Parts: sequence; structure tokens; C-alpha cells
Amino acid sequence: MCLVIRLSKVVQVFSLTLQCDSKLTVVLCTAAERNVLIVYAHQSNGSFNAAARDAAMEVLQSQGCRVTVSDLYAMGFRACATADDIIGELKNPDNFHYGEETVQAWKEGRLTDDIKAEHQKVREAQLIIFQFPMYWFSVPAILKGWIDRVLTQGFAFSLQNMYSNGNFKDKKVILSFTTGSTEGMFLPDGVHGDINVVLWPLQSGTLYFCGFQVLPPQIFWAPGHSPPETQKAMLVAWRKRLATLWEETPLSFTPTNLFDMSFSGGFRLLPQVKEQRQEEPYGLSTGHHLGKPIPPNNQTKASPPHD
Amino acid sequence: MCLVIRLSKVVQVFSLTLQCDSKLTVVLCTAAERNVLIVYAHQSNGSFNAAARDAAMEVLQSQGCRVTVSDLYAMGFRACATADDIIGELKNPDNFHYGEETVQAWKEGRLTDDIKAEHQKVREAQLIIFQFPMYWFSVPAILKGWIDRVLTQGFAFSLQNMYSNGNFKDKKVILSFTTGSTEGMFLPDGVHGDINVVLWPLQSGTLYFCGFQVLPPQIFWAPGHSPPETQKAMLVAWRKRLATLWEETPLSFTPTNLFDMSFSGGFRLLPQVKEQRQEEPYGLSTGHHLGKPIPPNNQTKASPPHD
Repeated sequence: MCLVIRLSKVVQVFSLTLQCDSKLTVVLCTAAERNVLIVYAHQSNGSFNAAARDAAMEVLQSQGCRVTVSDLYAMGFRACATADDIIGELKNPDNFHYGEETVQAWKEGRLTDDIKAEHQKVREAQLIIFQFPMYWFSVPAILKGWIDRVLTQGFAFSLQNMYSNGNFKDKKVILSFTTGSTEGMFLPDGVHGDINVVLWPLQSGTLYFCGFQVLPPQIFWAPGHSPPETQKAMLVAWRKRLATLWEETPLSFTPTNLFDMSFSGGFRLLPQVKEQRQEEPYGLSTGHHLGKPIPPNNQTKASPPHD
Repeated sequence: MCLVIRLSKVVQVFSLTLQCDSKLTVVLCTAAERNVLIVYAHQSNGSFNAAARDAAMEVLQSQGCRVTVSDLYAMGFRACATADDIIGELKNPDNFHYGEETVQAWKEGRLTDDIKAEHQKVREAQLIIFQFPMYWFSVPAILKGWIDRVLTQGFAFSLQNMYSNGNFKDKKVILSFTTGSTEGMFLPDGVHGDINVVLWPLQSGTLYFCGFQVLPPQIFWAPGHSPPETQKAMLVAWRKRLATLWEETPLSFTPTNLFDMSFSGGFRLLPQVKEQRQEEPYGLSTGHHLGKPIPPNNQTKASPPHD
């Protein structure tokens, strides 16, 4: 007989494990016992992305964290959201709707094993690191497939549980990625435009949507066009950051309580909030700009919350 | 024996087809003979997306266009960018870099047949319609896979040929997609934030990057939550729009000649342009906001160009 009680919500303090197997063992674990999931999307173990992944593993393991890696290419992770993700009969086979079918399948435990395995890793993680090369101003398709297939409605969010009420509000997340372009090209006056705008669909529309505390992104600017010593310095800086990553302030998003989250209210900003903001020089966030300049570095640097 | 001469570049005028098969036939075709590629990413032929695809096919074919559909799920299109896309030896197998390997493979005709087939369809098309349900504020993974694998460096862009100098500057493109949320939720004061910000990575970073003339997106707001008569009205409006789609003004982006497109100049906006813009109420585009309010509806409605 084995009884395990884990107060996983209070990892900042202690977790208490009782294991009973003819004798009773009480183990007190320190704050260091945290689970980290690295979702890694590069094809090659010789890449800079692999080095960034390894740096994260080493530093976090040295802190006592349990680190799990989902190496998507090595796993042959399926990217495409299809009816094959669902075991058993479809609700509506003639008009297949992936979201509607998977929310139902999730409730009934009828998702495929590869999705269930990722759900379990996410469930256990206090921190998720997405490590990838930016492809076309976004994640590579294989990682988009992880997002499409693993962040299942019900498991990751619901109409009642999204944004600051999201299911994962006790978890931290960080996008750690390499670019092919320089930082200057992603400034508001650079040829690609502001990186803060580029990151909005991923950081707000995907991660914050599920409630995650989104840490400022770790952007490795053009390591492929940098000399070895610069690449090395980038990894040293990443290791240094990882040492205190758990204490970082997340990015600031507009909290859900500033919106009328009802169909009659249209999920729009409360009139009194709009009024209060009228004299402010900036909008609330990159997407909630309210016709004003977007707050500088809104998706790249932490700033004090709005409420 | 059959000889076909096609002056595909001058579709605005005439194309002349000579077919020889014991007798000689000369056919003069009008401006209507245009090629359209629909890249379609929905799993079900019973879906609203399928109906939108069929509407486009019917209207465009009735104009005399040749319409090709890449039905990605039905084709079992591979989404993941891997070394399997390259025939023959890799340049650097120990540190595989997808972009560097594929530009070389493209030059040498060593990409796989599925990519070559899509290249040919893109080459022939004067208009590409992407028809898809929005997944996580972006395209579904299978369509991201098409973007990652088909818009090969060399074929679709180069450092010399990007944005307004892009390879596809004579082609039109349109994102036609369904959402699960209402239009109000995607306003600057809606819970998801401004749709114009959401569309920037796809429309500027991907499509305009390759030079495409990006037509305003066709957004079907939440058809899945709409009654049948509303869905029908959406399709009627889409058909009406398609009737004059070729004449539409594309979205306005910041032209490349306003930037110093050199490494020494950092691919940044020219100082004189920045100076000229100082008194303007808005930035140049959603991404090139220059610390000012973004131009309203910049990624959803056409407006006069800046130069």
C-alpha cells in the first residue's frame, strides 16, 4: 500500500510526501523540488538551440529541479490536428470540428496516448521552456502542432477559465528562441517591425490565454551569423539568467477583471476603465492599445501590472 | 505532337495557345485566363471552410480562371521541416540548419517532389487564397508546415529580394479564415486585443516578406456560433467580394525604399523618413508604429500607400 500526498500548489514553501510501505517515511523536500518541461523543436543536436536547451537543463538540474524534455523532432511528434487524435466515435463525423471533438474526447479520456503524455508533463510542470528557432515570425510547424494538439480545450482553458483566470495561472512559461535577423531589424523602425507586435499572438493569444505567467522572452539574436565567442557569451548570459529565473516578474497583460466577460457585454473593456485610461500616454498592452501608442517593450520586458 | 506557348506574364492582355495535333488550332484567351491556387487547411468537406473554398472555386472558375486546390489534410501534407525534404547529401549534417540546407537544395533541384509540386503551383498562380480556421491566433500547424516548407529561400525570397522587392510582387494573396470568437473580442478594447496586431506576423512577416500584394483578409467571424442564415449570408458576401477581387487595392505596407537596406545601415528606416513622420498622428504600419498609435485597420483594410 502506498499513499502519496503532495501539496504541489505550495512549491514555494515545502512539499510533504508520506510514503507508507509497512513502515512510514516522512520526507520534507525544499523549494528546489520543481518540475520543468522543455519543449524543444530543433532537428539537430549540434545546433545552438540544442546548446541553449542543454544549458537550461544543467542550470535547472543543479538547482534540484526535475527536467523533462519533449524533443519534438526526435519523438516524431505529429503536428497535424486530425480525427486520429480521438479514440472511439466522433460526435459529428460529417462536419468534423477539431476543437469540439477534442474537448469531448478529453472529458471522456479518449485522446491518443501521445497527447495524454504531453498533458501529464504540462500538469506536473511549474515551468515550461519552449526552445526553438523562429520560423516565419512564429514557431516551427512541429511546435505549432504541439500547441494545437496539447493545449486542448478543457485541459488548458475554457470560456470561464482564460487569460488571468486561465487554468495554468500557477505555472510559468518562457519562449526561448533564436532568430536569423539582428535585433535592429525587429525594432519599430527596423525592416521587420517591432518584435513586441510579432510576439503578441504567441505570448498573449496562446500562453497568457491559458493563464500562464509569461516570463520575458529569451531572444538569441542571429547566433548563426555570430562568431563563436559571441555565441558563447549568449549562452553564458542565458545561464546567468536561469540562475534567478524563478524570481523574475512576468510580463504584464491586461487582467480579465477589467473586461465585461459576458456575451451581453461583448468581452469588451469596462467603460470606467476606458475612461480612466483616457489621459494615459499609452495603451494597456500591445494588443489593447486603445488607439494610443503601445507601451514600449510590452512583450519583451516586465513592467508593473495595471491593476 | 503538341506545342504549347503560353505568355503567362501578360495575362492582363492576352495569352496565345497553339495546339498542334495533325491540325493547327489557334485559341485566343481573354484576360480571364488566370491561375488561382487555394491552399485549403480543414479536415472536413462538411465544414464552413469547405463551403468558403467551394464558393471561391465556383466564382473564380465562372470568370474563366483555372483553380488548383492544395487540400493539405487530404494530401497528407507533411508539416515538419526535416532533412527528409532534401535529396542527396547534406551540407552540414552535424549541425543541420533547415534554411541553409534547403536554399542549396533548391538551387540544385534536390528538394522532394511534394515541395517541388507546390513550388510549381505557386509559380503558376496569379492569386493564392489561404482558406483555414484560425487556430491559436494563427494558421493550423499543417498550414504553418506549408509556409515553412514551400516558401523556400531562393524560390520565395532572398536578402536582396524581400518585402516590396520580393519575388512574388506580381502575385496577389489573401487570408480567408474562420474564427471561434466574435469581431468585438478582436477589437483594441476586446479581450483578445486588436486583430490587426494578430495578423502582422502572417501578413507582413510572411506574405509581404515574399513580396505578395496582400489583399485585405476575408474574416468569417464565428460561423460555428452563428445560425444557418447568418452563415449563408457570409458566403453570399464572400461570393460578391470574389466577383471583383482582382480589382481590389492591396493592404499598405512600408515600402522597402524607405529603409537603408544595408548591413551598415542596419535595415532601419532612413533618417529623413523618420523626420518627415514626426508630425504625423500615426505610425507607418502596425509593426512600424514608431512609438505612435498604429494606423487604424492597417492589416484589415486597404489605405493609400505611403510613398
